[in-house]
Amino acid sequence: MAVNLPVLGALLPVPGVRVGTTCAGVKQRVRDDLCVMLLDPGATVAGVFTRNAFRAAPVILAEAAVARGGARALVINSGNANAATGEPGHADALAICRALEQKANLPTDTTLPFSTGVIGQRLPVERIVDGLDAAIARARPDGWVDAAHAIMTTDTGPKAVSRRVQVGAAEVTITGIAKGAGMIKPDMATMLAYIATDVAIAPDLLSLLTRRVADQSFNRITIDGDTSTNDSFVVIASGAAGNPVLRHPQDEGCAAFAAALTEVAMDLAQRIVRDGEGATRFVTVRVQGGVDEDECLRVAYTIAESPLIKTAVFAGDPNWGRFCMAIGRSDIPGLDTRGVALYLDDVCVAQQGLMASSYREEAGAAVMAKPEFEVRVQLGRGDAEAVVWTCDLSYDYVKINAEYRS
Amino acid sequence: MAVNLPVLGALLPVPGVRVGTTCAGVKQRVRDDLCVMLLDPGATVAGVFTRNAFRAAPVILAEAAVARGGARALVINSGNANAATGEPGHADALAICRALEQKANLPTDTTLPFSTGVIGQRLPVERIVDGLDAAIARARPDGWVDAAHAIMTTDTGPKAVSRRVQVGAAEVTITGIAKGAGMIKPDMATMLAYIATDVAIAPDLLSLLTRRVADQSFNRITIDGDTSTNDSFVVIASGAAGNPVLRHPQDEGCAAFAAALTEVAMDLAQRIVRDGEGATRFVTVRVQGGVDEDECLRVAYTIAESPLIKTAVFAGDPNWGRFCMAIGRSDIPGLDTRGVALYLDDVCVAQQGLMASSYREEAGAAVMAKPEFEVRVQLGRGDAEAVVWTCDLSYDYVKINAEYRS
Repeated sequence: MAVNLPVLGALLPVPGVRVGTTCAGVKQRVRDDLCVMLLDPGATVAGVFTRNAFRAAPVILAEAAVARGGARALVINSGNANAATGEPGHADALAICRALEQKANLPTDTTLPFSTGVIGQRLPVERIVDGLDAAIARARPDGWVDAAHAIMTTDTGPKAVSRRVQVGAAEVTITGIAKGAGMIKPDMATMLAYIATDVAIAPDLLSLLTRRVADQSFNRITIDGDTSTNDSFVVIASGAAGNPVLRHPQDEGCAAFAAALTEVAMDLAQRIVRDGEGATRFVTVRVQGGVDEDECLRVAYTIAESPLIKTAVFAGDPNWGRFCMAIGRSDIPGLDTRGVALYLDDVCVAQQGLMASSYREEAGAAVMAKPEFEVRVQLGRGDAEAVVWTCDLSYDYVKINAEYRS
Repeated sequence: MAVNLPVLGALLPVPGVRVGTTCAGVKQRVRDDLCVMLLDPGATVAGVFTRNAFRAAPVILAEAAVARGGARALVINSGNANAATGEPGHADALAICRALEQKANLPTDTTLPFSTGVIGQRLPVERIVDGLDAAIARARPDGWVDAAHAIMTTDTGPKAVSRRVQVGAAEVTITGIAKGAGMIKPDMATMLAYIATDVAIAPDLLSLLTRRVADQSFNRITIDGDTSTNDSFVVIASGAAGNPVLRHPQDEGCAAFAAALTEVAMDLAQRIVRDGEGATRFVTVRVQGGVDEDECLRVAYTIAESPLIKTAVFAGDPNWGRFCMAIGRSDIPGLDTRGVALYLDDVCVAQQGLMASSYREEAGAAVMAKPEFEVRVQLGRGDAEAVVWTCDLSYDYVKINAEYRS
């Protein structure tokens, strides 16, 4: 059901990072479900993690490892989220990190663990530890396609993309993989995204860019408004490109690097929406003319998460009153609806808070019949803008989430 | 598809209030769609209205009329919401009020207008004005059953209830009607609720009680999280019961009256949920042990509006991880998940943030197989509590909202 989910193009190896996968049999023995990423010494790692209060044990450990610095490895399993597992789950994740460090001859406390899949069940630690040998043995610079597959849960296809960008005199590579399609199986799936690059960059700056990039990509997508316990986005910079270390946003090449990083993250984030559970349409919600970005985002999310709008989008029904309803309940202080305009792609549906006199329902229906279109709202009270990407709410969303265990 | 929606019991006339209906043919000529309520002089009216920025013309006029005082009539049409109609819509609503006042020999500016149905279309003012004669002629104390029918749009059945309560030496009657089943047809339907009583009460106190009662009833239900442009809740007190006028919450009989009023409002609100679009289950979400009511409500609404939980409820699937996920993303500052417990009716599912050792999935599934059950969350950090009522998200919800125009 994915909406124009691109097939994988060529994924570029990132000097300083090797990736290996294997089938550890976390849940079933049908495909690779364990992935290790091994980083040469000197790599810099930054991350953004779920704010869900029920964050899983590996999330807590990974965030702490990022803060400590000196990361040398990531270990990711699909099939089990190690969430809501308490102290034993914490010990399990730690045991896997220790085993990886021992097997790969890495210092202690240099591994970031990640898990995605079933919650409330203990990890099969022994099987994962046994699988580490094969994953380490298979680790190689061009292991990205396998990695993109190994981290999948209910995704209908792998999500990955590469870019090259000039940073001063150096050519820098950026390769990213992601997984996520909603929250299921049996309880909550997870958005996981990893981007590796060989740029040389100071930890503080990478951390700043990672947060900014997340805000323009993974924090701008919504499928069902739910947030998992395991969501994580990690950027790895090996430094192998040999550029003068980027330390400040104003440094030569930093803007180009940040733009390319944003582009990769945005591409991955959009692929997650395209693969949204039951998705039949991919919708860009753009809100312009707000006093600040916050209020634009509030309107955009209210539209993107309204079940009434999502079902109308599924039906391809230009139900413009539902958009007005959503804008109106976004709780924008003092919103004067007489300044509000609504467009579906280039079709002006409403102006000054009323149906546009030029509007014909056939024109709106033609836009909404497309697999991809843009909903554009103008609030008419400022210069701020925000964009959110989402998909529709179909019978298959209900089916996938109601019936997958039957 | 309604879940245990009670059939109408006997509806008690409210001295001082007469109700009449007719078929004005607002949208089609199949059933009554126009209702007038005529109030004897001296009645007191209070109301709570939608906060949607796109509030419809009649809402603005009704709210102003309540504030002015001296209300003598209400006029309600179904089939057309007179929303997003701008200045002409305002004039239309006003014209109907003026016509009613003239035909019923009432002073100017004493009528509250209400509309529900299609948005973005002009009201058929002439047909409505023509219909007023019949509605006025048919106005009688026992017109409530007809009124409950006339205000319906996509409701599968009428919603009304009566109570008697002792206020000091006087016996007071309370009769209420409501409509609402989600937001549809073609854009946004509406929650409308009217409660009439013959109690004698000061305007300020009635206004205070109305807000409080709304917060315990209509503001505690959610079907799809969307809020219409026309939502209105009005309480009419004719004063005909002859009790000493209630002026303060401490006055004799006021607590009993407030309790009965709350009971009627809560009953009507729950009937709206029972008749929720596509509803197959009626769920009470009770959150206890919060620091304050606000945070309990935040958790309760996050649960009640999560598409993942609503689809699991539809499937009767005790997917407890989804409840944890929703609690965790409710944005409760400093929530310690180790204090959180989850019950499905009397079955303890999770304790201290983990699956309860006593929990068996069969027990959870047995509760969720019932048409009605309670989800109870204990936050373990205070004494506050909040309750919200909701329904599931079924194929029929998608069908009703995606396909009603096809």
